[in-house]
Amino acid sequence: MRKIINAPENFVPEVIEGLLLAYGDRLKALDGDKRVIMRNTPAKPGKVGIVTAGGSGHLPVFLGYVGEGMLDGCAVGNVFASPAAQKMADMIVAADQGNGVLCLYGNYGGDRMNFELACETADFENVVTKQVLVSDDVASRSKSESAQRRGVAGMVYAFKVAGAAAEELLSLDEVAAVAEEALANIRTMGVALSPCIVPEVGKATFSIGEDEIEIGMGIHGEPGIEVAKMMKADDIADTIMEKLIADMPLQAGDEISVMVNGLGATPLEELLIVYRRLHKNLAAKGVSVFMPHVGEFATSMEMAGLSVTFFKLNDKLKKYLRAPGSTPFYTNENK
Amino acid sequence: MRKIINAPENFVPEVIEGLLLAYGDRLKALDGDKRVIMRNTPAKPGKVGIVTAGGSGHLPVFLGYVGEGMLDGCAVGNVFASPAAQKMADMIVAADQGNGVLCLYGNYGGDRMNFELACETADFENVVTKQVLVSDDVASRSKSESAQRRGVAGMVYAFKVAGAAAEELLSLDEVAAVAEEALANIRTMGVALSPCIVPEVGKATFSIGEDEIEIGMGIHGEPGIEVAKMMKADDIADTIMEKLIADMPLQAGDEISVMVNGLGATPLEELLIVYRRLHKNLAAKGVSVFMPHVGEFATSMEMAGLSVTFFKLNDKLKKYLRAPGSTPFYTNENK
Repeated sequence: MRKIINAPENFVPEVIEGLLLAYGDRLKALDGDKRVIMRNTPAKPGKVGIVTAGGSGHLPVFLGYVGEGMLDGCAVGNVFASPAAQKMADMIVAADQGNGVLCLYGNYGGDRMNFELACETADFENVVTKQVLVSDDVASRSKSESAQRRGVAGMVYAFKVAGAAAEELLSLDEVAAVAEEALANIRTMGVALSPCIVPEVGKATFSIGEDEIEIGMGIHGEPGIEVAKMMKADDIADTIMEKLIADMPLQAGDEISVMVNGLGATPLEELLIVYRRLHKNLAAKGVSVFMPHVGEFATSMEMAGLSVTFFKLNDKLKKYLRAPGSTPFYTNENK
Repeated sequence: MRKIINAPENFVPEVIEGLLLAYGDRLKALDGDKRVIMRNTPAKPGKVGIVTAGGSGHLPVFLGYVGEGMLDGCAVGNVFASPAAQKMADMIVAADQGNGVLCLYGNYGGDRMNFELACETADFENVVTKQVLVSDDVASRSKSESAQRRGVAGMVYAFKVAGAAAEELLSLDEVAAVAEEALANIRTMGVALSPCIVPEVGKATFSIGEDEIEIGMGIHGEPGIEVAKMMKADDIADTIMEKLIADMPLQAGDEISVMVNGLGATPLEELLIVYRRLHKNLAAKGVSVFMPHVGEFATSMEMAGLSVTFFKLNDKLKKYLRAPGSTPFYTNENK
């Protein structure tokens, strides 16, 4: 197993320990519990809390986005596994400043079940919560079943705009509405060229031929739409874009943010080649791009491949996207 | 060849086109020449220019660091190949505001030869230049031959502090002295777990066994110190640290910045596991860490592996490291 790790069972604790040692000025473990990471900088008094949770193995998602202008807390489980409901409940209670907590997370069965339980527990402690699920992966279900779609890289945009709305001291209902409005305008699709290895399992999550590409692959190796022969970068960009705009039509004059997200092993050079094609395709349609995001935002450890997210903007969403943010792996000056 | 590219011969032009489409608000091609990228935001009048150059395939090095607080210009060649001297000369002339230009670049034969020629050409146009070479890779030559060492990820720190010094409107000699002082306190060593493929060549730059690791590998696949059996993360961290501090001793009370740099395919999780060990080792010696840099700063496309850079700070170097910077792939708020 070609991984730079120690004992596989220590993978997650050691990653979090490294994160806390590197970014202890911004992050802290809740009551010393390294599975619940909270913002270590003071939040504005009365700010609505925003928390998320999910499995490990997707850095910078989720822990890398805890901080000013984004998340107040994040609970993490083992690789690709949901954290326990009690951890989530502790986090929710800790994130509350009296005005409630938004639970903003990807639509996966384990996370959903555990957040349901956690919100009930928080309710006993008089913490008001709202849940907003991220389900941006157009490849995972058809449009008619879009509520059942998985959440992937688009969640980073949701964290950003909801976080900015909370910094403006909006109410819980208002912050949740901003997150929902953003998510209604966010679509993602990915392709994978290679699998990744879960440390404690020690073998690849799936197999794919040397000259094949899986269109629509999920970030845990969930099957996509089809396995195709390896394609050129422009064809990959065209295929993804066609699927995204079939689901969320764009028209001349629209302004969108585009995220080209590397899944782990794909070089920045290749992401830029794909961005280039998307930008030109969009320009040909009269669609302009605001604040492109090219890099690794939501990964699957050493998986090769990428995802593309389109985020259709309006004045409000644009304001929140460009608002300042400061977390270990996402920094935005006010532009 | 499992790469998300179009025709291999278009790899570099398409990467640069993508970069300019994504970051056109900050970067521009010099006179439409996509091999010379200049800062597209106004530099302070009279500021000393800082430029670099080198082969493609190392993003965010070099192009990703053009912008406020770092570089004014960068010329790039084909993958792992130096750009032409004339391109460098054009860039130097364009970066000059009357107070001269610092050429700050990695110690590779082609780049050195071409920068020598370029500086002569610039001299004919009455542009004063100084050259400072980055030679931070301790694995590439012994301490007695340290001036012949290759330049690797430590150059990012050099760009940062020299850039900050130039923003303070120091003279060319003063900015060069800051770069030299920084480089005298910077050491790097890397390990590689897999090769990368140069698009136009179509095959791996070198071969390495599935259960092997090459200690001291260069970023173009230059041979390292030894090929060893795959090691645990902590042993990798210990091996690298031992080599770095043998070359640049540290003592209790010292403050350093640590960069754990992914070469392309190595997950952030694994970089954090290595950071964790380094941080603890340093703490045990009474050495504290300021502004750790964990991520991909200088890559070799899809190579798996990492490098570690130690940058020993003093008050002046620390001030320049923490100064604001804003480039496509390096943003620093003033901390």
